[in-house]
Amino acid sequence: MMPLEVLEQAQAELPDWQHTGMSVAEVSHRSKEFVACADHTQELLRQILGIPDNYRVLFIQGGAFGQFAGVPLNLSKPGDTVDFVLTGQWGTKAFKEAKRFGLNPIAVTDEKASNYTTTPAQGTIQPTEGAAYLHYTPNETIGGVEFGYIPETGDVPLVADMSSTILSRPLDVSKFGVIYAGTQKNMGPAGMAVVIVRDDLLDRARLDTPSIWSYQLMAENNSMLNTPPTFSIYLLGKILEWVIAQGGLDGLAVRNRTKAETFYAFLDASDFYSNPVAHDSRSWMNIPFLMANADLNKQFVAQAEQAGLTNLAGHRSVGGMRASIYNAMPQAGVDALIEFMKEFERVHA
Amino acid sequence: MMPLEVLEQAQAELPDWQHTGMSVAEVSHRSKEFVACADHTQELLRQILGIPDNYRVLFIQGGAFGQFAGVPLNLSKPGDTVDFVLTGQWGTKAFKEAKRFGLNPIAVTDEKASNYTTTPAQGTIQPTEGAAYLHYTPNETIGGVEFGYIPETGDVPLVADMSSTILSRPLDVSKFGVIYAGTQKNMGPAGMAVVIVRDDLLDRARLDTPSIWSYQLMAENNSMLNTPPTFSIYLLGKILEWVIAQGGLDGLAVRNRTKAETFYAFLDASDFYSNPVAHDSRSWMNIPFLMANADLNKQFVAQAEQAGLTNLAGHRSVGGMRASIYNAMPQAGVDALIEFMKEFERVHA
Repeated sequence: MMPLEVLEQAQAELPDWQHTGMSVAEVSHRSKEFVACADHTQELLRQILGIPDNYRVLFIQGGAFGQFAGVPLNLSKPGDTVDFVLTGQWGTKAFKEAKRFGLNPIAVTDEKASNYTTTPAQGTIQPTEGAAYLHYTPNETIGGVEFGYIPETGDVPLVADMSSTILSRPLDVSKFGVIYAGTQKNMGPAGMAVVIVRDDLLDRARLDTPSIWSYQLMAENNSMLNTPPTFSIYLLGKILEWVIAQGGLDGLAVRNRTKAETFYAFLDASDFYSNPVAHDSRSWMNIPFLMANADLNKQFVAQAEQAGLTNLAGHRSVGGMRASIYNAMPQAGVDALIEFMKEFERVHA
Repeated sequence: MMPLEVLEQAQAELPDWQHTGMSVAEVSHRSKEFVACADHTQELLRQILGIPDNYRVLFIQGGAFGQFAGVPLNLSKPGDTVDFVLTGQWGTKAFKEAKRFGLNPIAVTDEKASNYTTTPAQGTIQPTEGAAYLHYTPNETIGGVEFGYIPETGDVPLVADMSSTILSRPLDVSKFGVIYAGTQKNMGPAGMAVVIVRDDLLDRARLDTPSIWSYQLMAENNSMLNTPPTFSIYLLGKILEWVIAQGGLDGLAVRNRTKAETFYAFLDASDFYSNPVAHDSRSWMNIPFLMANADLNKQFVAQAEQAGLTNLAGHRSVGGMRASIYNAMPQAGVDALIEFMKEFERVHA
């Protein structure tokens, strides 16, 4: 979901961008206009996240799933041990993908026993000595499980798939070796990953890393080794301007916390609806909910869609319902959903 | 460059697509609307190119440079011999990228002696016996060199990087093992490659092929193993509708041939401008040209830009000027350039 203001700006500029007579979707990536646009986007991201000078910001094609391969290729060599913390399906996919690259991936923590409704207690994650990195997923979209803390991993570089939580609240980037995020949640259209990588990790790539996924080559070429996804970089810049207009990450954090608390409070007070996630692990972005009578799920989703409340079906692997309330979702959207749910309960309880 | 009609349609639909109340850039890729859109795009491409039933059409992130790695990972194993025909810089980049993957890449033909102004004579390309595939670049954008024929390679699968020539004229897909093309020339915005792969080549991928680049996994998942670049697929569909409105590839071929012939005729009749490419190897899409006095180049490019004729500087590696006249460039654009060039010659000759 993207802010309507951003879409309207993009709409106004689509056929003629910056008086070039061309669309940003067709302008040359070597043009001074586009180079300035990409620099501006990167500068805004650095400012908003407070990215330290010893980190590089890369725009890489292939989204987060691409980085499930990109991270092992860039940070490990065959035979290395790599650690994973599993709190849901995305982390598990990253774990499985790592197995393609001749590694020894270890699930140092796996919350399967709780059916992925928990995060490990703070202080309990123990990286393997000598591991090339430890990977975790701060927010799992399907289970609606989010870490309330950043794991301490000592000398083992911490790698995070922040696709569904980046820009939702302030972040201490200096705790991480690599942060990556597919853009399609809080950062624009699908197709690109933002990768934030600490300088000292740039030179670890295997020779057989595809060039356009090599952190070092992309850093040396300012993400323009090949033609970058110009429209995605442009739209990300617009979204970052919107983030600043919302008061930056502090402003968005207040807004996101309020949205989430409103919805959880409603669910917890209800006998008709429930949320299965442990209180200290509840996501601000994705809130699954269940009804005691699961036979009503289809009806709920269909009637909600008629009321303009879309995308409420839970992931096909877990069923139930799920509200995804990313940055662009206003409080009014959450309030409207709650009103709909009250009425649905009134009719069906 | 994209047709203005397409950009205007995309503009009109950007904030609210198909009455979903959402932009196609934010809609779920699992929604029935988007699945229908992606199917429609693929169906149009099959129809326009006459793609046989034993070929799969894949939408893969990372553009053509991604496929420089994707092809060796999908079609060869370490130690294999792979053949390359080099007629310019893009083929040479693909050749170099293949070296990352433990292969024995052989340049069976290299037109370096002519400074990449020629293609090999028909019938002279000899694949290595047992080669995993033979790769060539039907159109080289920087040198403006295009094949007038499809090489015969017998049992060795023929692989073509068609980024800058696809959809410019009819094509016999059945001659190829794999065709791939970055979308940013004749097929929309940057960030995606279309890959057309023959069924019998799907099962050759190495285990360490990143999943989102595995032809087999992408074929099994109808290009939706991960979130696809929805906006790019949507825009490609619009462009394909435009292609049909132009009379399909037959219609575009007439138009492109006329544009190119007009421009080459002007250059060949001139003592002031020249084109260095052999007559049988001249590109319909990219036409480099030189002036005897290279000191005038900067002035030419700057004055042309003032006259609204942009992107005329030659690639930095070869200098001079270059007109890129992709599908979306109308005859009037070529005529306007010729008029400008006549006036420039009148002042400076």
